[in-house]
Amino acid sequence: MTERMERGLEKLRKIDGEAGERVIESLADVSPDLARYTIEYPFGDIYERPGLSLRDREIATIAALTAMGNATPQLKVHIQAGLNVGLTEEEIKEVIIQMSVYAGFPSALNGMQAAKEVFATTE
Amino acid sequence: MTERMERGLEKLRKIDGEAGERVIESLADVSPDLARYTIEYPFGDIYERPGLSLRDREIATIAALTAMGNATPQLKVHIQAGLNVGLTEEEIKEVIIQMSVYAGFPSALNGMQAAKEVFATTE
Amino acid sequence: MTERMERGLEKLRKIDGEAGERVIESLADVSPDLARYTIEYPFGDIYERPGLSLRDREIATIAALTAMGNATPQLKVHIQAGLNVGLTEEEIKEVIIQMSVYAGFPSALNGMQAAKEVFATTE
Amino acid sequence: MTERMERGLEKLRKIDGEAGERVIESLADVSPDLARYTIEYPFGDIYERPGLSLRDREIATIAALTAMGNATPQLKVHIQAGLNVGLTEEEIKEVIIQMSVYAGFPSALNGMQAAKEVFATTE
Amino acid sequence: MTERMERGLEKLRKIDGEAGERVIESLADVSPDLARYTIEYPFGDIYERPGLSLRDREIATIAALTAMGNATPQLKVHIQAGLNVGLTEEEIKEVIIQMSVYAGFPSALNGMQAAKEVFATTE
Amino acid sequence: MTERMERGLEKLRKIDGEAGERVIESLADVSPDLARYTIEYPFGDIYERPGLSLRDREIATIAALTAMGNATPQLKVHIQAGLNVGLTEEEIKEVIIQMSVYAGFPSALNGMQAAKEVFATTE
Repeated sequence: MTERMERGLEKLRKIDGEAGERVIESLADVSPDLARYTIEYPFGDIYERPGLSLRDREIATIAALTAMGNATPQLKVHIQAGLNVGLTEEEIKEVIIQMSVYAGFPSALNGMQAAKEVFATTE
Repeated sequence: MTERMERGLEKLRKIDGEAGERVIESLADVSPDLARYTIEYPFGDIYERPGLSLRDREIATIAALTAMGNATPQLKVHIQAGLNVGLTEEEIKEVIIQMSVYAGFPSALNGMQAAKEVFATTE
Repeated sequence: MTERMERGLEKLRKIDGEAGERVIESLADVSPDLARYTIEYPFGDIYERPGLSLRDREIATIAALTAMGNATPQLKVHIQAGLNVGLTEEEIKEVIIQMSVYAGFPSALNGMQAAKEVFATTE
Repeated sequence: MTERMERGLEKLRKIDGEAGERVIESLADVSPDLARYTIEYPFGDIYERPGLSLRDREIATIAALTAMGNATPQLKVHIQAGLNVGLTEEEIKEVIIQMSVYAGFPSALNGMQAAKEVFATTE
Repeated sequence: MTERMERGLEKLRKIDGEAGERVIESLADVSPDLARYTIEYPFGDIYERPGLSLRDREIATIAALTAMGNATPQLKVHIQAGLNVGLTEEEIKEVIIQMSVYAGFPSALNGMQAAKEVFATTE
Repeated sequence: MTERMERGLEKLRKIDGEAGERVIESLADVSPDLARYTIEYPFGDIYERPGLSLRDREIATIAALTAMGNATPQLKVHIQAGLNVGLTEEEIKEVIIQMSVYAGFPSALNGMQAAKEVFATTE
């Protein structure tokens, strides 16, 4: 196991928690290589960088995935991740509401629906 | 002028500065109504909300517009807006680099090019 | 309740019917603010405008949501809304078929599948 | 020349006017086949269909291209086409404003900029 | 039945197999015209062209649908189609992994999930 | 310089040629880190993989970037890259034409325009 991989796996566990591990597990049979890249580059390289807090990074990710509107499973993982690294439910909802301005109301409505489902599992 | 409009105009000036005013002016002849909505809803309603700082809101907007990749003029306005409300150039670059993970390298590369152009005008 | 809100709620009921009310209700616990904005801006401001008939407006919305291809729940609401404001099933199908030209066959095929499901509930 | 091709070329001229012919000409050296398909399928097959007026069809196309936000040259051709088949400037602006609801303000702002440029050439 | 239609239907059967026929059947009641266009243009015109092998064409289609991320049913049909025309499971996975570079990790992860589901039905 | 970086730089030069080097240079002042990631992950990791030829990989990339329609500079780099690794102009045009099916005619038309510009510089 490379050092990037070790570092990435630790970061993945810290940020995404169990949801992240499930993503990696579900790739184990079909593409362990994609699992490895998903750990190495996003988590081993990018989330490791010092210039922005994990809380700020999750604001960016939740915003982007809500706006793109075509990656609901990943949006849910990162709504949970946002909670894990210190965002409150209210702050996550603010980010999603704001996306109505940049990507339209459907993106915001579908993002809020994803948040509702994630929040329900944490109560 | 409605109270939302006044409040929005003040917020627009604070966040987007001159670039925001230019957007509104360029709409003056073709669609003053769209100019008004652009002031009222994003700035009078959303950026006015207390649940998230303007710095956090600009992280979200820069992330989303970089990821979407089809709104370069607005991305530039918000890179400048990010600087206006307290993000550093380094932090803005972190957000853009992170988008390579969620929207691919072309989005990040084109976002960085937009940032380079905005930063050049502020030096 | 503001005047925009009242006006928007009336318009929402007229255009989207029960489906629109369900959207608002499903937001009641997670984000009443997003519910309010969804009523105020799209319905209280935009669909209220006199320059285009509701029938024409639903052609535009069905076209856009079919082309974007990432907002199936909202597309279904607006296919029903199209029927509510006077579009025929045949006209809605024409709009969806036309989107194969601008957004490709997958968008048109998935839009038609959504239409099929909505039409089935109205028979 | 096939019958679809002849029918399509006639329709293209009627709807898109000179702008449509320029698109076809610019493809003449690099890909006459793509030029032919562009005439045959959209114009020879789809715009020929009787179930929706050309005015309604251009509402759908302007809406979709504004919302997608990544096809400015084609959006401009169809804003001109909208005028050619009976939409007024005011109606076209209504469609574009409405897209702020479904695809966000940047799409509407960039669509309005395209409209402003097309309208300037017709005055 | 036109000659394009016959030719397209034959090609559709060869490439997409049963999955393609199910798409056409599911359109039979709601829009036989869209079914016809889906056969005529993509299969009767494009996949018939001699300049690229069917294997190469499916690489292109799987890449595009994975990157777009909003057309899962069609992506699955074309993952199966790729197998039908000679791509191996390993090659299809390579194309999907590569999309992480151009459209981000969520697109690649969701594409790989689609591949996993298709591969499971063929074993 | 890491071994991934060296390997990636060599691959980048082989595939993208001068255009790739210009991308890296233009990042040198604003974000050498993004330049490094662009070399390491796409070129050092992905294009290095043995499971698919470089020719096949460029078919996938040209298809995806044409379909996405929001990354013209990168599409041009990869049209040139396609030529560098053995695709003919005719094969590249086939890929672009095929995208009309999956992402609509505007994507194909804008992709062909990009190809026309790249081909003009190589003659």
